[in-house]
Amino acid sequence: MDECKVIIMGFGSVGQGVANAISMKKDLIYEKTGVAVKVVAAADSSTSAISQDGLDEKLLVETKKNEGKLSAYPEFGCDTNGVDVLDAVEYDCLIEATPTNIVDAEPALSLTLKAFEQGKDVVTSNKGHLALKFREVVGAAEKAGVQFRYEASVGGAMPIINLTKETISSCKIESIKGILNGTTNYILSRMTSEGSAYEVILKESQELGIAETDPTQDVEGIDAACKTVILANSLLGIDATYSDVKVKGISDISSEAIELAKKDDYLIKLIAEVSPDNLQVSPRLVKRGSSYDVSGTLNMATVKTDLAGEISVIGLGAGSLETASAMLTDLISILKNKN
Amino acid sequence: MDECKVIIMGFGSVGQGVANAISMKKDLIYEKTGVAVKVVAAADSSTSAISQDGLDEKLLVETKKNEGKLSAYPEFGCDTNGVDVLDAVEYDCLIEATPTNIVDAEPALSLTLKAFEQGKDVVTSNKGHLALKFREVVGAAEKAGVQFRYEASVGGAMPIINLTKETISSCKIESIKGILNGTTNYILSRMTSEGSAYEVILKESQELGIAETDPTQDVEGIDAACKTVILANSLLGIDATYSDVKVKGISDISSEAIELAKKDDYLIKLIAEVSPDNLQVSPRLVKRGSSYDVSGTLNMATVKTDLAGEISVIGLGAGSLETASAMLTDLISILKNKN
Repeated sequence: MDECKVIIMGFGSVGQGVANAISMKKDLIYEKTGVAVKVVAAADSSTSAISQDGLDEKLLVETKKNEGKLSAYPEFGCDTNGVDVLDAVEYDCLIEATPTNIVDAEPALSLTLKAFEQGKDVVTSNKGHLALKFREVVGAAEKAGVQFRYEASVGGAMPIINLTKETISSCKIESIKGILNGTTNYILSRMTSEGSAYEVILKESQELGIAETDPTQDVEGIDAACKTVILANSLLGIDATYSDVKVKGISDISSEAIELAKKDDYLIKLIAEVSPDNLQVSPRLVKRGSSYDVSGTLNMATVKTDLAGEISVIGLGAGSLETASAMLTDLISILKNKN
Repeated sequence: MDECKVIIMGFGSVGQGVANAISMKKDLIYEKTGVAVKVVAAADSSTSAISQDGLDEKLLVETKKNEGKLSAYPEFGCDTNGVDVLDAVEYDCLIEATPTNIVDAEPALSLTLKAFEQGKDVVTSNKGHLALKFREVVGAAEKAGVQFRYEASVGGAMPIINLTKETISSCKIESIKGILNGTTNYILSRMTSEGSAYEVILKESQELGIAETDPTQDVEGIDAACKTVILANSLLGIDATYSDVKVKGISDISSEAIELAKKDDYLIKLIAEVSPDNLQVSPRLVKRGSSYDVSGTLNMATVKTDLAGEISVIGLGAGSLETASAMLTDLISILKNKN
């Protein structure tokens, strides 16, 4: 394989990050794998740009930023969208970066299954299809004999899935415990350092763009619960789905509770727990100075193993280029495995 | 490849850990790679046990523990030692776990180069040959077309080399900063929590077996400096050797200095820094609650990248099974790459 033709589906923050990252790292990818990466299509929610000869990644990002839709891409912009994009051009790998949908997992589910049917490898940052139908999706990839990687779906730039599967492959994983949502960690960190009320910090976080206008997915623990299910399935072999996770968010944590914890040198954190008998996301007391004492939008996870004791990893849980870097590492691994 | 015949050179804590870990993980390795691992030789500093049909890993460990030397292994014990072991039996992979020698890197250097000449893959936990002659050793492996892996040489069970090379392969590494020696971290942690003098804690650490009878390698920063050089070469592409590292240990850190730091919410840690213009091991002030605030014998490292921001990893820097787990992961990677 000398060339890898990729389609980027979803062109929000993560999709644009992937385009920028590919533009920056083409030479590095070629150096590591001997393969030239070419973007042959990119699609936002309703339009796309498609060219078998390849698109300019920077121009894709500029077009989306300035014109609001990829159909405005010079010469190759069009109204093809959704799964039709996968029929409109020859490609080798789908980079799936559409928004997570925890109701029916669309459009990620249809896009991913269609790519598998077409015999294509897939890299995803999406949590919806993995949280709702992990076995079905991974099973379909296995049946099709293609590679499917999803490091970016948990923890953004924090490498937890590949770390556990590949970098400590000699170990059995007994449990994982961590902070898997950056927005709630930011809110709790500021409530702790400033003594302010939840509502005050949430509002400021929304103004800063750290929390969404509708913050439910983050503050009610839904996002962290999706990630909990993905880790349970992929790293502990637990056959679970989203509804198996006990979830409690942070919206009723009072500044008084945080002050009380501080007096005894404790912090309140939204902790995800993954073990064969416990799938849970809930506010928990953690000791100040422990490995769970990470602040701001950072994510962290501690993996308990049979041979290596506990291994912890800390990294940025979100961000455009940061999340894209995880997807690019997945792409590099796919290309290495092919050659 | 259906079978992998391994030789374990060095049968102290790490070598015995490897034998135990292989015994525990044969099925897992077979499951992951389709290859059956067989120990055909194991050698301590002056004797060995050798059998082309395979040795019993648990009996090797028992023999060494009870009789003090591997020549006491039933039927297959003998006085063959050093590089001669590599000529005495057919093998596929050398697991090199002899003690680090920072003067002339022997016997690791001769063993490793001979294995390469014989076209064999090598997994090592040794720091000496890598710290003194990184380019020569890695160059010899490349020339011979064999695989050479050394995760266990830095940070024991803390995965830093494979993490950086494989799990964040899309990123350029700008610098690494961390705590790479567990003994000094233990001493400084206890000086901080108890307010005791260096000499008092050192003595207790020696009684507990955490510090060596001659603690120079650890407390003067030599061990951390070796690891600094290995990270510089392997992850930042810096052509450096041991003498290029500026080293200052912890033996003149007073309890007064630690108390003074604590008043402003700082800790004193022995920090290793790796960047293109700075290779250094020295006691530094770090903020309490920062990612450098890890206590006891833990190791940690923060990798600064171009795309993913900072990624930190924390793990046990030593221990028999813990270090062996890193070597077994390296062996699994070698077997996967072969198939």
